[in-house]
Amino acid sequence: VGPSFSRPKHTRTVTGLGPSEIKSAESSIPEPQRAAWKKNTPQEFQTKDEFLSEAVRHIETTLARSLFNCDESAAYGGTALAFRDRLVMEWNKTQQNQTTADQKRVYYLSLEFLMGRALDNAMLNTNMKGPAKDGMGELGFRMEDLISQERDAALGNGGLGRLAACFLDSMATMNYPAWGYALRYKYGIFKQEIHDGYQVEVPDYWLDFNPWEFARHDVTVNIQFYGGVRTYQDDNGKTHSSWEGGEIVEAVAFDVPIPGYGTATTNNMRMWSSKAHSGEFDFQKFNSGDYEGSVADTQRAETVSAVLYPNDNLDRGKELRLKQQYFWCAASLHDIVRRFKKTRKPWKEFSNNVAIQLNDTHPTLAIPELQRILIDIEGLEWSEAWEIVQNTFGYTNHTVMQEALEKWSVPLIQHLLPRHLQIIYDINLNFLQYVEKKFPKDRDMLRRVSIIEESEPKRVRMAFLAVIGSHKVNGVAELHSDLIKTTIFKDFVQIYGPDKFTNVTNGITPRRWLHQANPRLSELIASKLGGHEFLKDLTLLNKLENHVDDKAFRKEFQEIKYANKVRLAKHIKNTTGVSVNPAALFDIQVKRIHEYKRQQLNIFGVIHRYLAIKAMNAEERKKLAPRVSIFGGKAAPGYWMAKTVIHLICKVGDVVNNDPDVGDLLKVIFLEDYNVSKAEIITPASDISEHISTAGTEASGTSNMKFVLNGGLIIGTCDGANIEITREIGDSNIFLFGNLAEDVEELRHNHLYGKYELDDGLRKVFDAIQAGRFGDANQFSALVNGIVDHGDYYLVSDDFNSYCKTHDLIDESYKNQEEWLTKCITSVARMGFFSSDRCIDEYAEMIWNVEPVKPKAEQVNGG
Amino acid sequence: VGPSFSRPKHTRTVTGLGPSEIKSAESSIPEPQRAAWKKNTPQEFQTKDEFLSEAVRHIETTLARSLFNCDESAAYGGTALAFRDRLVMEWNKTQQNQTTADQKRVYYLSLEFLMGRALDNAMLNTNMKGPAKDGMGELGFRMEDLISQERDAALGNGGLGRLAACFLDSMATMNYPAWGYALRYKYGIFKQEIHDGYQVEVPDYWLDFNPWEFARHDVTVNIQFYGGVRTYQDDNGKTHSSWEGGEIVEAVAFDVPIPGYGTATTNNMRMWSSKAHSGEFDFQKFNSGDYEGSVADTQRAETVSAVLYPNDNLDRGKELRLKQQYFWCAASLHDIVRRFKKTRKPWKEFSNNVAIQLNDTHPTLAIPELQRILIDIEGLEWSEAWEIVQNTFGYTNHTVMQEALEKWSVPLIQHLLPRHLQIIYDINLNFLQYVEKKFPKDRDMLRRVSIIEESEPKRVRMAFLAVIGSHKVNGVAELHSDLIKTTIFKDFVQIYGPDKFTNVTNGITPRRWLHQANPRLSELIASKLGGHEFLKDLTLLNKLENHVDDKAFRKEFQEIKYANKVRLAKHIKNTTGVSVNPAALFDIQVKRIHEYKRQQLNIFGVIHRYLAIKAMNAEERKKLAPRVSIFGGKAAPGYWMAKTVIHLICKVGDVVNNDPDVGDLLKVIFLEDYNVSKAEIITPASDISEHISTAGTEASGTSNMKFVLNGGLIIGTCDGANIEITREIGDSNIFLFGNLAEDVEELRHNHLYGKYELDDGLRKVFDAIQAGRFGDANQFSALVNGIVDHGDYYLVSDDFNSYCKTHDLIDESYKNQEEWLTKCITSVARMGFFSSDRCIDEYAEMIWNVEPVKPKAEQVNGG
Ligand SMILES: Cc1ncc(COP(=O)(O)O)c(C=O)c1O
Ligand SMILES: Cc1ncc(COP(=O)(O)O)c(C=O)c1O
Repeated sequence: VGPSFSRPKHTRTVTGLGPSEIKSAESSIPEPQRAAWKKNTPQEFQTKDEFLSEAVRHIETTLARSLFNCDESAAYGGTALAFRDRLVMEWNKTQQNQTTADQKRVYYLSLEFLMGRALDNAMLNTNMKGPAKDGMGELGFRMEDLISQERDAALGNGGLGRLAACFLDSMATMNYPAWGYALRYKYGIFKQEIHDGYQVEVPDYWLDFNPWEFARHDVTVNIQFYGGVRTYQDDNGKTHSSWEGGEIVEAVAFDVPIPGYGTATTNNMRMWSSKAHSGEFDFQKFNSGDYEGSVADTQRAETVSAVLYPNDNLDRGKELRLKQQYFWCAASLHDIVRRFKKTRKPWKEFSNNVAIQLNDTHPTLAIPELQRILIDIEGLEWSEAWEIVQNTFGYTNHTVMQEALEKWSVPLIQHLLPRHLQIIYDINLNFLQYVEKKFPKDRDMLRRVSIIEESEPKRVRMAFLAVIGSHKVNGVAELHSDLIKTTIFKDFVQIYGPDKFTNVTNGITPRRWLHQANPRLSELIASKLGGHEFLKDLTLLNKLENHVDDKAFRKEFQEIKYANKVRLAKHIKNTTGVSVNPAALFDIQVKRIHEYKRQQLNIFGVIHRYLAIKAMNAEERKKLAPRVSIFGGKAAPGYWMAKTVIHLICKVGDVVNNDPDVGDLLKVIFLEDYNVSKAEIITPASDISEHISTAGTEASGTSNMKFVLNGGLIIGTCDGANIEITREIGDSNIFLFGNLAEDVEELRHNHLYGKYELDDGLRKVFDAIQAGRFGDANQFSALVNGIVDHGDYYLVSDDFNSYCKTHDLIDESYKNQEEWLTKCITSVARMGFFSSDRCIDEYAEMIWNVEPVKPKAEQVNGG
Repeated sequence: VGPSFSRPKHTRTVTGLGPSEIKSAESSIPEPQRAAWKKNTPQEFQTKDEFLSEAVRHIETTLARSLFNCDESAAYGGTALAFRDRLVMEWNKTQQNQTTADQKRVYYLSLEFLMGRALDNAMLNTNMKGPAKDGMGELGFRMEDLISQERDAALGNGGLGRLAACFLDSMATMNYPAWGYALRYKYGIFKQEIHDGYQVEVPDYWLDFNPWEFARHDVTVNIQFYGGVRTYQDDNGKTHSSWEGGEIVEAVAFDVPIPGYGTATTNNMRMWSSKAHSGEFDFQKFNSGDYEGSVADTQRAETVSAVLYPNDNLDRGKELRLKQQYFWCAASLHDIVRRFKKTRKPWKEFSNNVAIQLNDTHPTLAIPELQRILIDIEGLEWSEAWEIVQNTFGYTNHTVMQEALEKWSVPLIQHLLPRHLQIIYDINLNFLQYVEKKFPKDRDMLRRVSIIEESEPKRVRMAFLAVIGSHKVNGVAELHSDLIKTTIFKDFVQIYGPDKFTNVTNGITPRRWLHQANPRLSELIASKLGGHEFLKDLTLLNKLENHVDDKAFRKEFQEIKYANKVRLAKHIKNTTGVSVNPAALFDIQVKRIHEYKRQQLNIFGVIHRYLAIKAMNAEERKKLAPRVSIFGGKAAPGYWMAKTVIHLICKVGDVVNNDPDVGDLLKVIFLEDYNVSKAEIITPASDISEHISTAGTEASGTSNMKFVLNGGLIIGTCDGANIEITREIGDSNIFLFGNLAEDVEELRHNHLYGKYELDDGLRKVFDAIQAGRFGDANQFSALVNGIVDHGDYYLVSDDFNSYCKTHDLIDESYKNQEEWLTKCITSVARMGFFSSDRCIDEYAEMIWNVEPVKPKAEQVNGG
């Protein structure tokens, strides 16, 4: 700073201007300054050479590397940074364009976004992979090697989180003005290692180098916890409540650009990171020399966004989890309300400007929080506010399983969020009065539908609060949407009528799950369909049926599958050391390890097959189709039964893979650390994949769709989206087995109170386990006893026989390779329905009532 | 990842190749690939337009901002990033060049580096400030406003840390191949706020946006703590020790480029950040659902580099501090040894390749650590290793005050670093045997010089260990270097002879402290000296004496001082609300608040002056020169007495500044949050600055040099560098007062045991305080009693009278403005000696024995 002299001085404001403000901010800038800016505005690279100069610049500057020490990680970094720059330019234009358009926006609140890697997606969605690949080739790097340097953004557990990620892709691709709101976990889902056949968890340091996020240190929200409620009367005698005291944790925004495919629209995923509020650094301790103690507080604040809870479909009721939920809901709502207020529209316009989708009950606190903002802070009347709230929210249910339904203890909420508890009680009171009017005298109904469960301690049923606070509730597949209406929300259908409940069958983005994961298949399809239009309208796939008899097409289709199996076989060899035969039938079950998903059924089936092989003579063995049984998936760290299943799979693998009697006929593989990027290698390589949950437990499943779209068949139960997949592709193209959802209750009852006999084949399997053929039998006794003695809740025994028989059928069927191929091709052609684009259109139409915003013409050229 | 196909594949290695490896790595890359790289290598900007396009690109991409929301912080960010890119290109070339040169390198180990801001320094050192200023001007921004957006890198307490920063600047400027090794505190020294006249500490989030560092996630070192020592015999019967078990914390490197002035050399400061070692994430707790607990461990690891200990010249003996010291020493040594080993030279060459300077005793553990590496890991014999150790290290002592001398409890070291304690005992044994041989029968000598103090508990005297493990020990000013030889190291002079002890009087970098802080004065001097050469050879300043009678020069000199005072007056108005008259005499004392620095003497003097003014009649008042007494500095959070002094200053200010009797005659200002960037505003604005430590306590002081170099005079005691400043500028140009160091002991003795009478003037001051004229007297009773009743350790009373008289002299002297101006100009002309460049040359010559490495010709053009 030199001694003062006079020059013009600008202080421009921070991010987040309203539509009119943008205009006035721009026009307030003198013309010469605008000209200077425009002249220097960076241009998006369009050619190999332009890309390469960006990438090398980043390697030498941002990454501080030189020619001689540029390894693959640096080359990845440079490529990623070049693309990140490109995305952010489009991001800026999109945000400005959407703000100016001033239409209704969607906010997708999800505690999980299982994004996977971003680079390949960015290259493909911007249609710039060719130049990048060629450019890096000139430096001697292969693009696949660079892509594989990236760490997954693994901010989720499984299907629910991946769905949110697919939805972001679809919303951007279809130009919907939509933001995702996420929590920026410092550690995503743990990394799974297998040591001695046991799962070992290792932390995921995904943020060490993350070029895909932009820190917004100027976008912060103070989030309050604890404290108390002060009630007072104003001059007009009106009573007000005010939440006061307690402690503050600061939320800092980090933005991730979400590029649409074949459009310049680049939406935003905003992640909140927690940090100590300045005032929260404990200088009392600091002063007295207790430096460790003084940072402990800061660290406590940072703990809020530190770890993703690694439970899939399980509620644990931990205080920190509740803190996470409120922290993220409150920060997001503050952001949304602030953005709305800048439009200067009246409050009654709020739900015409804002649609908020609750992905499961995790963000349900957003309901009382918005009500609180409106009545306590903005001064609206209760009923006026409540109408806005209900019109704003939509709620997606993901499960009917009791153990997964969130219920928060009342004392815990009282302690952490005293004002919200009051509001929840008031919501409940109003609701019950309404019910009582509609169903006078039905005391039991009141008890059943109350938001407050009369347990000890009392608990808040979050799903009920979500239903009551939303204008639409949807399930994620037809069966599941029917089930919620007949089970957990049965009373609510009576109360609100059936129209409040709807179905949006899940989908997947064909960009990542076909074009990116299986580029050769995508090319082949494009060659037959005359272009890549099907990636934006997946129903066009149906034209493939015209080519089902086309020899060359069939051959290429089959070769692609084989090549994908070779690629997976290499991965298996590299990671497990086991050689598998790519000509064998690849039978894959990859997903979270969970009793309801029944990996135990699968491994028992494998043992059954192993015992059969052992009992065969050489002649018989020759007739058998070789198989590779592939498993993958994480168990929640505290889920002991799931870990036992992993251990059994590994132990069976040890025995089977080294048994000379068996050879190529059977291999059993457990793939470490299943995640999105591994799914991209695994999914295109299946002949059969397993989706064998106990009927009525899997809400939809999405990996089933991914496997079929990539030309693999399914063995599955009549559960979740399997049913709709069957409807679409035809029941001759899927291997269904097992009991139906409607019979589950009866069967369970029989297990406990009626006559129940263990399946005979299964008994032999258990005998082998108990004889120690797969190591110490004690290790597996709880698993076996759960089925033999403790009611077999997931009906493994009931389905075992039909499961094994169906596998025999599959063996048979696979022998006729031509017929098999026809099944695969036909199935692919009929999968058009399962695009997440279709889901988003349904949400937009039925639930959100939003319209796309086209990118500006000059932007389209850029994109 | 697409299906596999064949293309060439490179896996290049991570950073840190040896000289021969660089060559072979480069030549292993096929020519076309090298050509592709070279073609795309980014060029350093040279013009305004080139700069502007870099800056705008960064604003739009890295910072994701647009024209309409580019505020000053974004404009700063873009400018900083453009310069950071430029620095890193030179950094890369410099490192490669120095590695190839393969000369001896210096490693400067300092637990504190008080760097301040980097942008202005980068612009000036690369001679690119003009283009940047013009470019940002085109966008409507003033460069001073942008510069002031940057947060100080405040990784230090005071003089010791700032010295390290000045040394880095000098080493780069003079092309020495030198690295600084630092700890990357997440929170630097706290931010000081003043509330109601009390110091309040606020955390310093300096890392939120720090474009000046490069994360090196691939450069990590595992640091061990705790555990035990295993002793075993090898096959030849030789005994080995091995440190095993305990816990691991990972050190991650972050590099900060240090650009030299007017040279392309860009050196490195490597900061270590602590992080949990993967294995240290507590998955036991994680598994059992204790997620908070599981991160707690990770956070404990991160705590190691979390906070800078905010004590200046005070040892507190906290375990975490010891952990910090070892963590940083071990990581740095590992790095240094790794770099040496890549040269493939024999161990005896180590100290011909490596010089390590210990800035104070904080890095003393590097001595036993290097010994441990050499004997336990590399298998050298003890004596061979010890010779290498001694030849490698140099130790700079910074204090003779007992309370500042580090002594670590033996049980603590035993617990944390069991093997190091053994080695320290062995070092001590060898040393004492040597002493015993030289001075047989002098038992008391053995007790006095032992590294182990026989206290309860026993303690390790780090200063003694540092002396014994180094080949040279230096003090930081002549008086101080004499004092260490006659006090704390007296016996060691006997043992080793006087040549082991030397002096390097501290210095300051004229780039930051003249050219950057006072650009107009730098220009004026350049205009008289025919260029800026003096910034690289400060002794050229002496030519200014030829111009001391040049009217125009004198006028401009005076105007510059006035403008700098106006600038400070504005800052005072903005931050405190108090208007001060720039024509008044600005009397400044800014430095850490410490009893030995005697801000209390100053404020008592101010009160004395206030009482005098109150007692004057109007006539007398008219004759008095108006004064502004300016204070600034942080008190350690737990240093109660220092905080009381701040409180008294503020309270006196409240009274004096609002007393209508006083008006402009006296203003008392406390400036909040004194740090390097504020020092750059404050230093050029003094008429008088105060350096009034009790004689014998301040080792050197460096702000005294800064003030004089900027044309201010000094009131000071005969202490530290004041003495040499006097010798250089002449005793008529400085206001010295007070007792001498040699008399201090006697005076203290008299206070306690002899006759002692409180100074009369001081008594009146105390009477006023005790009468409550500056608020509640109880608040100040400890401060007053310490002087009246408890021995007045810092001799405030003894020096009070001469202090006040000297201020009267200053008033007198200031009246003769022409004479005053002559003193100022003459002083500036004679300050050439105090450049840190001179220090570095002395270190290089006397202690390190290193030579500069010239940047390559093509690089010089770039720089
Ligand atoms: C990593 C990952 N986990 C879980 C899932 C969901 O699998 P499922 O639908 O089989 O539960 C997917 C879907 O692709 C996935 O990629
Ligand atoms: C911020 C800061 N603190 C402390 C010091 C050292 O001051 P002194 O030499 O007066 O102790 C300096 C020197 O300029 C400084 O810039």
